[in-house]
Amino acid sequence: MWADLAPVGREPGGGYRRFAWTRADHTLREWFVAEAGRRGLSTVVDRAGNQWAWWGDPDTDGPGVVTGSHLDSVPSGGAYDGPLGVVSAFLAVDALRARGVRPSRPIGVACFADEEGARFGVACAGSRIITGALPADRARGLTDDDGTSLSDAVRQSGYDAELIGPDPKTVRRVGTFLELHIEQGRGLADLDWPVAVGNMIWPHGRWRVELAGRADHAGTTALADRDDPMLRLAALIEGARAGAARHDALATVGKVKIEPNGVNAIPSHVTAWVDCRAAETERVERVLAGLAEFTSTNESWTPVTVFDEALVAQLSRTLDAPVLSTGAGHDAGILSAAGIPAAMLFVRNPTGVSHSPDEHAERADCLAGVEALTRCLAELVA
Amino acid sequence: MWADLAPVGREPGGGYRRFAWTRADHTLREWFVAEAGRRGLSTVVDRAGNQWAWWGDPDTDGPGVVTGSHLDSVPSGGAYDGPLGVVSAFLAVDALRARGVRPSRPIGVACFADEEGARFGVACAGSRIITGALPADRARGLTDDDGTSLSDAVRQSGYDAELIGPDPKTVRRVGTFLELHIEQGRGLADLDWPVAVGNMIWPHGRWRVELAGRADHAGTTALADRDDPMLRLAALIEGARAGAARHDALATVGKVKIEPNGVNAIPSHVTAWVDCRAAETERVERVLAGLAEFTSTNESWTPVTVFDEALVAQLSRTLDAPVLSTGAGHDAGILSAAGIPAAMLFVRNPTGVSHSPDEHAERADCLAGVEALTRCLAELVA
Repeated sequence: MWADLAPVGREPGGGYRRFAWTRADHTLREWFVAEAGRRGLSTVVDRAGNQWAWWGDPDTDGPGVVTGSHLDSVPSGGAYDGPLGVVSAFLAVDALRARGVRPSRPIGVACFADEEGARFGVACAGSRIITGALPADRARGLTDDDGTSLSDAVRQSGYDAELIGPDPKTVRRVGTFLELHIEQGRGLADLDWPVAVGNMIWPHGRWRVELAGRADHAGTTALADRDDPMLRLAALIEGARAGAARHDALATVGKVKIEPNGVNAIPSHVTAWVDCRAAETERVERVLAGLAEFTSTNESWTPVTVFDEALVAQLSRTLDAPVLSTGAGHDAGILSAAGIPAAMLFVRNPTGVSHSPDEHAERADCLAGVEALTRCLAELVA
Repeated sequence: MWADLAPVGREPGGGYRRFAWTRADHTLREWFVAEAGRRGLSTVVDRAGNQWAWWGDPDTDGPGVVTGSHLDSVPSGGAYDGPLGVVSAFLAVDALRARGVRPSRPIGVACFADEEGARFGVACAGSRIITGALPADRARGLTDDDGTSLSDAVRQSGYDAELIGPDPKTVRRVGTFLELHIEQGRGLADLDWPVAVGNMIWPHGRWRVELAGRADHAGTTALADRDDPMLRLAALIEGARAGAARHDALATVGKVKIEPNGVNAIPSHVTAWVDCRAAETERVERVLAGLAEFTSTNESWTPVTVFDEALVAQLSRTLDAPVLSTGAGHDAGILSAAGIPAAMLFVRNPTGVSHSPDEHAERADCLAGVEALTRCLAELVA
């Protein structure tokens, strides 16, 4: 399965560009249907384009235990973020069958649409839409950098954009959700352990900061006469970093838009985005308070997600695995917020590098992840 | 003339986008031919697409006195930078005729192609090509942001791209060049005077700075584990400004390219451009020496341009006008470097704002500029 996925959406630099509702995405969807079919699982697509492959019938036999992740990527993303959870899900199904497990509840393998939000700007769009966390009208109107709406992109992929919206029937089928994912930090590497149970997603948000200035000629305007927004950008970058260090949080300025962005032009305006996260909401608030001199607008805010405590405790016992929290959002967090008992498994990332072509997990650790997922599923469907 | 030019290439925000070899540029070229024709001047286009309208024949009556400027703009540029010099040139011809001046030498009105370099990245491309300062092969291969080459753009505008190259015949026709331009600083505003004679263009250059980093997830990577090039960008912006202040120079970071430029991604790489100028080359060198911690590549360098000293003295006497230098490059500087006696006239800019929709000159000062240009031309062709 890994070899089949390897060339899809691959960039010359070795990273992946697998944006939602593109040709690469379509190829990945076909791959998912083929792998499900190879195992005799029936695939259904919900009203947000998420794919579900079922072993057993959740409509007649009650809500199932679902595992899976996503196949889309950020620009120049790594091979593991998302695909490791989907591939491990299929392998866990294979392992359960090889061991003769006869599930008392249906088992589902899920592949969520547009988890990264790289194209339309909203992360976990697929799970947000079906749970109602992202209103259908807002979802349809999201546009990519070329001005194509999500609606049009869905339509161009051959799906019915009119269907986009909450999908309670699909959500009701999910009794428990368990997402396996490569760790995106060095928690397991520091602990020298291959697999952890995820118990919490940090509260996180993004803020748009408008840095005003006055367009002027770089070659003729005296320093004293300048109103250069780039100096404010420098102060913002340094202020965000210093605030994060002071309050034990994470803050990043990763995206900037400069007008007009010309070599000999003092910019008229700079827009910068601050991403801020911490284990506690109060720490995020403190970092933002330290940036009060800047005009910022909150663009998204996700409160802390605490996964189902009983489930986390059970899985941690089953695996004798450490428990870790994460600063990254996941579909598991969206489903958890919608009231579905959910948790995650993390697979060791030796460097902690993520959202990068250098993202990597050792083969032995990936196999340990499959084994852990298999044992968790076996226990949950016993 | 001003009213005819006002709508061409106008942006919704009130600025102008008049890039070389575009539809707007074509409209401006037609306007130039029409205005020349209205005055009985014959227009010729040289091998770089520069337009020349002649009163008298420079091939039979010897090199002429040429005045003019350009009609193209930076993105969101002002109305005066360039057009003021071309409109004033035609008005000066009208004034000379109204006063019954019979020139002893031909008089030319010039409109240079692609002065701003906004589309293909090389400023004063038109004058550089005909004087050989920009090799023809390099010129033809320049590309815009859409990947269109200068060659293709010229061809699509209906000109013969094969002709692009040095044009000694055109250059030989220019005995003296005088360019009128809106001032791009507040020198005249501070002096409370409407018109100055330009004597010098500061040495200026641009450097590309590569700021390396490592792509990582903004939500999961500990501060200590980050290699974030945005912090280097902040240091570069502040270092360039501080160096310019220390050494009485100008330094600007106006253009930045961030990879991948995603809200939740620590960038893998940032490229920034530093524009640096000063009255003396040594000051520029000192600013760059202060940025030695960064890996920079010089992309362009224009040594100091000292305009013809006798000409500057003569014009300053004729007009009883102050003498000013400028940090901005102009076609007059390129022709001067090619050995043509050249000088400039600057018209007061009350705010000093330039390369901006807010660029402005008072009507009375513009008319004073026409009068000054008329008197200079009258003396030069006496």
